[in-house]
Amino acid sequence: MEMLKPLHVLHDSLNKPVLVSMKGGKEYRGVLDGYDQHMNLVLKNAEEIINSEPKGVYNVVIVRGDNVIYISPP
Amino acid sequence: MEMLKPLHVLHDSLNKPVLVSMKGGKEYRGVLDGYDQHMNLVLKNAEEIINSEPKGVYNVVIVRGDNVIYISPP
Amino acid sequence: MEMLKPLHVLHDSLNKPVLVSMKGGKEYRGVLDGYDQHMNLVLKNAEEIINSEPKGVYNVVIVRGDNVIYISPP
Amino acid sequence: MEMLKPLHVLHDSLNKPVLVSMKGGKEYRGVLDGYDQHMNLVLKNAEEIINSEPKGVYNVVIVRGDNVIYISPP
Amino acid sequence: MEMLKPLHVLHDSLNKPVLVSMKGGKEYRGVLDGYDQHMNLVLKNAEEIINSEPKGVYNVVIVRGDNVIYISPP
Amino acid sequence: MEMLKPLHVLHDSLNKPVLVSMKGGKEYRGVLDGYDQHMNLVLKNAEEIINSEPKGVYNVVIVRGDNVIYISPP
Amino acid sequence: MEMLKPLHVLHDSLNKPVLVSMKGGKEYRGVLDGYDQHMNLVLKNAEEIINSEPKGVYNVVIVRGDNVIYISPP
Repeated sequence: MEMLKPLHVLHDSLNKPVLVSMKGGKEYRGVLDGYDQHMNLVLKNAEEIINSEPKGVYNVVIVRGDNVIYISPP
Repeated sequence: MEMLKPLHVLHDSLNKPVLVSMKGGKEYRGVLDGYDQHMNLVLKNAEEIINSEPKGVYNVVIVRGDNVIYISPP
Repeated sequence: MEMLKPLHVLHDSLNKPVLVSMKGGKEYRGVLDGYDQHMNLVLKNAEEIINSEPKGVYNVVIVRGDNVIYISPP
Repeated sequence: MEMLKPLHVLHDSLNKPVLVSMKGGKEYRGVLDGYDQHMNLVLKNAEEIINSEPKGVYNVVIVRGDNVIYISPP
Repeated sequence: MEMLKPLHVLHDSLNKPVLVSMKGGKEYRGVLDGYDQHMNLVLKNAEEIINSEPKGVYNVVIVRGDNVIYISPP
Repeated sequence: MEMLKPLHVLHDSLNKPVLVSMKGGKEYRGVLDGYDQHMNLVLKNAEEIINSEPKGVYNVVIVRGDNVIYISPP
Repeated sequence: MEMLKPLHVLHDSLNKPVLVSMKGGKEYRGVLDGYDQHMNLVLKNAEEIINSEPKGVYNVVIVRGDNVIYISPP
């Protein structure tokens, strides 16, 4: 069962705030609204943070999993 | 159902304006005209923005999903 | 049907001039003569443009899809 | 049997502290809570270390295997 | 049929001189002796060109398709 | 049979010291304890070497094959 | 048959000296002892050459195909 753990933890994070760290130094803080097996993510009310500075807020962002380094649930 | 969410959100964005952020600092703002499971996108009336400066407008652009960081529907 | 849109738009661009933007700053302007599902492309009478400067013309170029950022039909 | 060894060693490390070294110079020290065949990992009580300096602690982190260089169990 | 065009054009280039442009700035000019579906290539009498300067000639070179940007038949 | 040679040579190196050269300039010297078809490796008593300088020793390291350049058995 | 040519040429090079050019500027000169379909290679008596300077000799090296740019048989 631990073999499915990464997606299970994503599942348990649905509708909760998460921090997503991306390649290239970007971060997003938002509510996890969906995901798929590639770790493509849908975030709601997502704040974009570049080098620790807030850059803007998006109602909805579809993040390509390819660029994700880690996801931290609350 | 959340496992399909990223493509569902793309589907719901058809014929609406989206912002597409690309690896290498390019952005496109245009109307989403189509997509596939690799997140290859077709944009209409797409404005190319490099480092926050508008660089030109394309009637149609086929963007390779490989280069997409995120897509933000309106 | 929108799921097939990117390849459909390529299909509709056959025998028409396209602009192909590549990773690393190269561009090609030529007539689309063929393509496959990886977005490998065949261009005829293709002008190579590096950093906005024309560098030469090729009768035929087979471009590996891997390097394509976007394709813009006329 | 040695062909399955890398995942077996991960399995034996469940609920134990591990050091995870990432592309780009980040490290995580935390308790391994799960993994999958892509080496996506779930860490608990994970300390983030950048260039040998501690940067913060996360209750839970889902690390994308793509970015992992090595994992060292205790 | 245009879906197979890139490999068809390669096929028609067998035993003819081609120019192969590689990631990292290398080029090869040689006679195409073979290829596969990954665009791995075999070139005969291949001249290596780095930043427009000839660097040497190889009787036979097996080029990994992964590194190919484009192939231009005569 | 030569088609299986790379994994055979790995197999024959089990329980023997190997040198593993990694992308980014790291090396590991340790005893090969396991491997899989992706060239994920398990090393025991592994010394980490960065730019020719020893940096530490790990009882066990699971190295992701993705980062391996070459493996040299004794 | 030309579709299989790259691996055929590798096969014909078994037990012969080859030059292997790698991403990152490394080269190996050695006797080809084996290969697989990913172009993973086994070299015997392999001399490592970095920026045209010999750096050492390995009895056996397993090179991951991922890093190969080209292979030149004698």
